[in-house]
Amino acid sequence: MEYPIVTFTSDFGDDDWFVGVVHGVIHELCPAARVVDLTHRIPPGDIERAGYVIESAAPDFARGTVHLVVVDPGVGTERRAIAVRARDQVFVGPDNGVLEWGLSATGGEVRELTETHLFRQPVSRTFHGRDVFAPVAARLAAGLTFDAVGAPVRDAIRHPAHVPEIADHHIRGRVAFVDRFGNVFTNITDRDLDAVFGDIAHERIDVEAVGRTIHGITRSYGDAAVGAVIALIGSSGRLEIAQVRGDASQRLGLALRDEVRVHARR
Amino acid sequence: MEYPIVTFTSDFGDDDWFVGVVHGVIHELCPAARVVDLTHRIPPGDIERAGYVIESAAPDFARGTVHLVVVDPGVGTERRAIAVRARDQVFVGPDNGVLEWGLSATGGEVRELTETHLFRQPVSRTFHGRDVFAPVAARLAAGLTFDAVGAPVRDAIRHPAHVPEIADHHIRGRVAFVDRFGNVFTNITDRDLDAVFGDIAHERIDVEAVGRTIHGITRSYGDAAVGAVIALIGSSGRLEIAQVRGDASQRLGLALRDEVRVHARR
Amino acid sequence: MEYPIVTFTSDFGDDDWFVGVVHGVIHELCPAARVVDLTHRIPPGDIERAGYVIESAAPDFARGTVHLVVVDPGVGTERRAIAVRARDQVFVGPDNGVLEWGLSATGGEVRELTETHLFRQPVSRTFHGRDVFAPVAARLAAGLTFDAVGAPVRDAIRHPAHVPEIADHHIRGRVAFVDRFGNVFTNITDRDLDAVFGDIAHERIDVEAVGRTIHGITRSYGDAAVGAVIALIGSSGRLEIAQVRGDASQRLGLALRDEVRVHARR
Repeated sequence: MEYPIVTFTSDFGDDDWFVGVVHGVIHELCPAARVVDLTHRIPPGDIERAGYVIESAAPDFARGTVHLVVVDPGVGTERRAIAVRARDQVFVGPDNGVLEWGLSATGGEVRELTETHLFRQPVSRTFHGRDVFAPVAARLAAGLTFDAVGAPVRDAIRHPAHVPEIADHHIRGRVAFVDRFGNVFTNITDRDLDAVFGDIAHERIDVEAVGRTIHGITRSYGDAAVGAVIALIGSSGRLEIAQVRGDASQRLGLALRDEVRVHARR
Repeated sequence: MEYPIVTFTSDFGDDDWFVGVVHGVIHELCPAARVVDLTHRIPPGDIERAGYVIESAAPDFARGTVHLVVVDPGVGTERRAIAVRARDQVFVGPDNGVLEWGLSATGGEVRELTETHLFRQPVSRTFHGRDVFAPVAARLAAGLTFDAVGAPVRDAIRHPAHVPEIADHHIRGRVAFVDRFGNVFTNITDRDLDAVFGDIAHERIDVEAVGRTIHGITRSYGDAAVGAVIALIGSSGRLEIAQVRGDASQRLGLALRDEVRVHARR
Repeated sequence: MEYPIVTFTSDFGDDDWFVGVVHGVIHELCPAARVVDLTHRIPPGDIERAGYVIESAAPDFARGTVHLVVVDPGVGTERRAIAVRARDQVFVGPDNGVLEWGLSATGGEVRELTETHLFRQPVSRTFHGRDVFAPVAARLAAGLTFDAVGAPVRDAIRHPAHVPEIADHHIRGRVAFVDRFGNVFTNITDRDLDAVFGDIAHERIDVEAVGRTIHGITRSYGDAAVGAVIALIGSSGRLEIAQVRGDASQRLGLALRDEVRVHARR
């Protein structure tokens, strides 16, 4: 791409210089890149949440986007550094499951970052974001062949946290994310709903959580009254529970990992 | 412009991927754009505060800048999406008053975003920042004719929260913003002061708030002693109350919406 | 440089429009620049912390990088505005010690920003980040000769807070920074260790803090057990105290400014 996009997600927070230094490395090695911060407020070491962020955001980016993900509690240990080419994009980060969105694709390729001449030297023990992941991500954005980063990997660590349990007539998922507005994102996708319920009208599908039943999956947010709690397919194709102009998470006492069940009404 | 600027203000916060996804959309549709985040920490749905941010920041940007403002509690309802061309800049956002700075200009033009082929498809119910506002803002930055976004609007929703009450011999305004340092920004501008007080020396103009009188509007910040509470014309041309090297808001117990009165000394 | 980098560090926080306005000024005067935010969450007026951020981050950036640092409690007073050329980079900010990293270099040059035609006009009393520092930083990034910014300065204010006390057989430093993960950064560099301990193996060097002794400076982070408290040379070449997959600051009760002593084991 003429102006490749490199997204950057980490648990570095906003108080230090770490994020900026990584930007500097990318700009130096790929001056044309647009660096897009997804978030740096992943709780320290929270691989599952970082994975969810990538899974939710990546489909909104163009083909060829490089996603740099540095949530790396194992930095300095023997954990591998990898790159994944999948879903027409590239993902770079530690081999700890944080790249699950890429790994879960069919036909993806995984390589270990073994070509040390691609790194920033000397490689520190504690800041592989700067020294290993960012240089490789930037070089890939600048046109480096994917295969050049290192040897193929067939046993990358998986972290399939976001897969709901799917049965013939119902889906048992859970809360995967709560956003700033109190909207509750489940791990249940529109494809899951199609697979289980097929032609059944969304109005006849019920969503249960924390002992409460929401009747029907709403198509039109604006039809419901202010204050109403509704289920809908959100902007990233996932089943969400929301309160119209309110905070559903607070209203229902619905929190991360709570079970959400979906079934057709009898 | 060769490198158009698109500013971006929202209530998305920093914990999610929403801001980054919007950046990605803009980069994709207008690769030359520089995307400048004003703030994403507008309290959820706080149209008045977002309006104040735009009003304060926009005059500092170049002609032709496109301001994208996504504080949109009515997303998914019948509220319109609009663009405003005014003050040599363009403003894009929901029709809920958040674009008041553009709407309050004389000679401005307003259009509804009805040309759906300009949107990102499919348009979600809940994320018009990504699907409607950002694509149109990016295309305008890339050179799209303003008129091409949709039909003219003559009844855009107004939110003139920041207009002080102006009388012959005094001004009755209020606190419109408190910054991180405790500096108190009023809704009273230097133009308001000129209109009411004309040639009266600033030293003879008193500022009253929370039962306290500050004598004179200071020109030179550095002349006052450390700890002194002063009134001055701040960096965006508004009357401010500050404490030299201190926190005026805390010192005076002066908070958002508190009344501030200005009159000439007898 | 074809795409010069301008880093930006301030105490502006993320709630206001101040950071964005400064970005706008830089883009306008140097469209090719990549603006990299280090952090804007320096506590208001905390010159020492801002100095540490620059000292830690600057060496990771390319030659020619311009570092804009706006922690400026004396704005509006007689404090000077300066630029420093040192260590193959340029530093722009107030003359209050925040540019100590540049000032401490041998062979550096300092100039006062006296060429007011380089500023944004009119210059406000309270926002020199926008009106003085950013315009000059942007023009320098765009190729302005360093000498053109103003007259030489020989008595810039120093703030050598980060220099440990070095004796023949030990070093007495202190905690200079605690990052988000609870890693404790001292003001003791690898060069200090080399100067004092020369050929002594790192395994034989002890680190003492808050009444606790850590035996040996670890080379390989990954060799220690989860939960172990270790001393190591961190990613910016400074002695750090860390807990493997834990929060050393919390674990040890070790906080900013606490003394850290280093000596060879008998």
